[in-house]
Amino acid sequence: MSSVTVPPPACLLRPLEAPLRYLFGPGPSNVPPRVLAAGGRPIIGHLHPEMYGIMNDIKKGIQYAFQTENKMTISMSGSGHAAMECAVFNAVEPGESVLVAVNGIWGERVAEIAERMGELLLLFSKEDPYDSIESNDIFFAVEKHKPVLFFLTHGESSAGLCHPMDGIGDICRKHNCLFLVDTVASLGAAPIYMDKQSIDILYTGSQKALNAPPGTAPISFNERACQKMFNRKTKPVSYLFDMTHLSNYWGCDGKPARAYHHTGPVSGFFALRESLAILAETGLEESWRKHKEVSGYLQRGLEDLGLKLFIPERDLRLPSVTTIAIPEGYDWREMLVYIMKNHQMEMTGGLGPSIGMVMRIGLMGYNCEKTNADMALQALADALKNCKKTRG
Amino acid sequence: MSSVTVPPPACLLRPLEAPLRYLFGPGPSNVPPRVLAAGGRPIIGHLHPEMYGIMNDIKKGIQYAFQTENKMTISMSGSGHAAMECAVFNAVEPGESVLVAVNGIWGERVAEIAERMGELLLLFSKEDPYDSIESNDIFFAVEKHKPVLFFLTHGESSAGLCHPMDGIGDICRKHNCLFLVDTVASLGAAPIYMDKQSIDILYTGSQKALNAPPGTAPISFNERACQKMFNRKTKPVSYLFDMTHLSNYWGCDGKPARAYHHTGPVSGFFALRESLAILAETGLEESWRKHKEVSGYLQRGLEDLGLKLFIPERDLRLPSVTTIAIPEGYDWREMLVYIMKNHQMEMTGGLGPSIGMVMRIGLMGYNCEKTNADMALQALADALKNCKKTRG
Repeated sequence: MSSVTVPPPACLLRPLEAPLRYLFGPGPSNVPPRVLAAGGRPIIGHLHPEMYGIMNDIKKGIQYAFQTENKMTISMSGSGHAAMECAVFNAVEPGESVLVAVNGIWGERVAEIAERMGELLLLFSKEDPYDSIESNDIFFAVEKHKPVLFFLTHGESSAGLCHPMDGIGDICRKHNCLFLVDTVASLGAAPIYMDKQSIDILYTGSQKALNAPPGTAPISFNERACQKMFNRKTKPVSYLFDMTHLSNYWGCDGKPARAYHHTGPVSGFFALRESLAILAETGLEESWRKHKEVSGYLQRGLEDLGLKLFIPERDLRLPSVTTIAIPEGYDWREMLVYIMKNHQMEMTGGLGPSIGMVMRIGLMGYNCEKTNADMALQALADALKNCKKTRG
Repeated sequence: MSSVTVPPPACLLRPLEAPLRYLFGPGPSNVPPRVLAAGGRPIIGHLHPEMYGIMNDIKKGIQYAFQTENKMTISMSGSGHAAMECAVFNAVEPGESVLVAVNGIWGERVAEIAERMGELLLLFSKEDPYDSIESNDIFFAVEKHKPVLFFLTHGESSAGLCHPMDGIGDICRKHNCLFLVDTVASLGAAPIYMDKQSIDILYTGSQKALNAPPGTAPISFNERACQKMFNRKTKPVSYLFDMTHLSNYWGCDGKPARAYHHTGPVSGFFALRESLAILAETGLEESWRKHKEVSGYLQRGLEDLGLKLFIPERDLRLPSVTTIAIPEGYDWREMLVYIMKNHQMEMTGGLGPSIGMVMRIGLMGYNCEKTNADMALQALADALKNCKKTRG
């Protein structure tokens, strides 16, 4: 057996092309040159001492961004979904029950993951499927079902909702239930305090307000979560996401040596460190303030265009991703294609349950500037003018 | 609740530092400037049409590298371990039996993964734990145990062994067993023909002879594997690694639209495309020839230094990673530290079962040059001179 029968593909003999785009959707966001440069540096080995130093810096940066002192703080070698699975795989044993708050796509996703291993209970908002869920309803559901884990999304990017967090951690603690929060779309844009808000497991993604390329995902576990996950009777279903190994790889388990587990995305960690460094330099409070200011500015501009915001309550609006109800007499797909074609700008439609209901504009981190809000408003005004149906 | 209590970490106010290193271990390998530049380009959205074009190019590049026409050919958004878990999670249902050939670390790893979900059977080499396994032994084991999946590593980097592949796929086919092969350490360095060798599932990593940064992992499934995995009674344990969704994300399922599944590592895919383009330009046969030539040159140089190669049979030596028996009178850790400190060069010790038995030199892809072999030999000669114990 000797010769090659599948020839080299002609498409690969052409150079890589990727257009410049304004990424004003719900993420990934444009990556600042500083972070791109960090990610494009010559790599070192994943087990070199300098790499451990970089990973330690990342850990500190995540602790700051999450407002936590948890030593069990790492980054996944994967997207937000890897963190989501890691949390469920490690915190839940087969047959245990999980309660999931569903008011958009992220709850649906965790339900998809949890139903593969345990008993699943869903909790919906009473009034409107995209509204926040009352603390009282959470209290009764946790008391009644006694789940081992309760999941809630902080920044529900499919609806543009920022869910209130205060008090929920205490409810869970009272009933010996772990409180798992998804802050992928909100971290750095809206305040979250992991320790003060008694959140047991918190994760995010790299490609939203942190402005790193997608592919890494910070996650942190507090002492309660560690107690549960390191006293399991069964091993987690995934070896790759097993926190017994990941905690060692990240030097969180107190052991003197780190064993080889998997090969981490070295370039991705370079970029993640740089994005966390920018957040540390800017300061969380300034970052929160700016997202609030720019999203408020964008929202007023949208209303001035005659558009209706999807989330009526101002305080519940997510500062990173703004949702607009689709205006009557327009085809949202046509508008988005028009804006992409004529303004090189990404805005998006809904996601999962909100498809066909909303258009979404994300101005996150590096992109969170009034000048960008102005550009987005101009592009929308142009689309409103040129995409109107003859009989709207 | 308002103010930040965890302050910004001082370590992040210092710039990112990563030294320049010769990565002559078993991977990651040095990344060529062309691939670094591709990975450092401004990103686009993971669901933009241009991204689908890039993913299609990647698919074609993997088909060439694997020598397969399988349409179910994708890259994982993760390292080789993600591909390993994806293969096992999708091909095996709970309680089914898996046969794993163990002659180094990779078989041990697959066993770790498989034992979490099914019945596990291990197959060892009769003579030496690091030797290849006879086809006859595989035949008898498959016939006796009737597993649904048989795993074998093509390039066992912990031992420096390149396992013969011919005939094994036919054995598996005869007994309705899927043949899963790990080619992480060997792809591009040693010939593999997925279709001709009747391999049902094949995967690799990005950071070895392909010379992309770690974080992506090509994998391909043939029609037999698809028949099994798409006619399961149960869902795979992982949503993230569920091929029903991944095949749609990669446009392999024939459906007109791709739904959002997870956010792929855009920069990682840029880099992977570039590394596959280099392989297409070079040509597989030239790449195999060069790895054989340079590893042969390195091996002669090592023997000239009085060192003993760990794999005695020349034909079984892996052309990407060469293993040396630890010379008497030396502490291997001390030698490696000396070489790193004085030559800015990574060589490594053993991995898993071969720790304490071998030192390993990898010259892969971009690094596979006689001039690099000379540098490695010089560094080793220097260490042999300076690290000898007084009573060796």
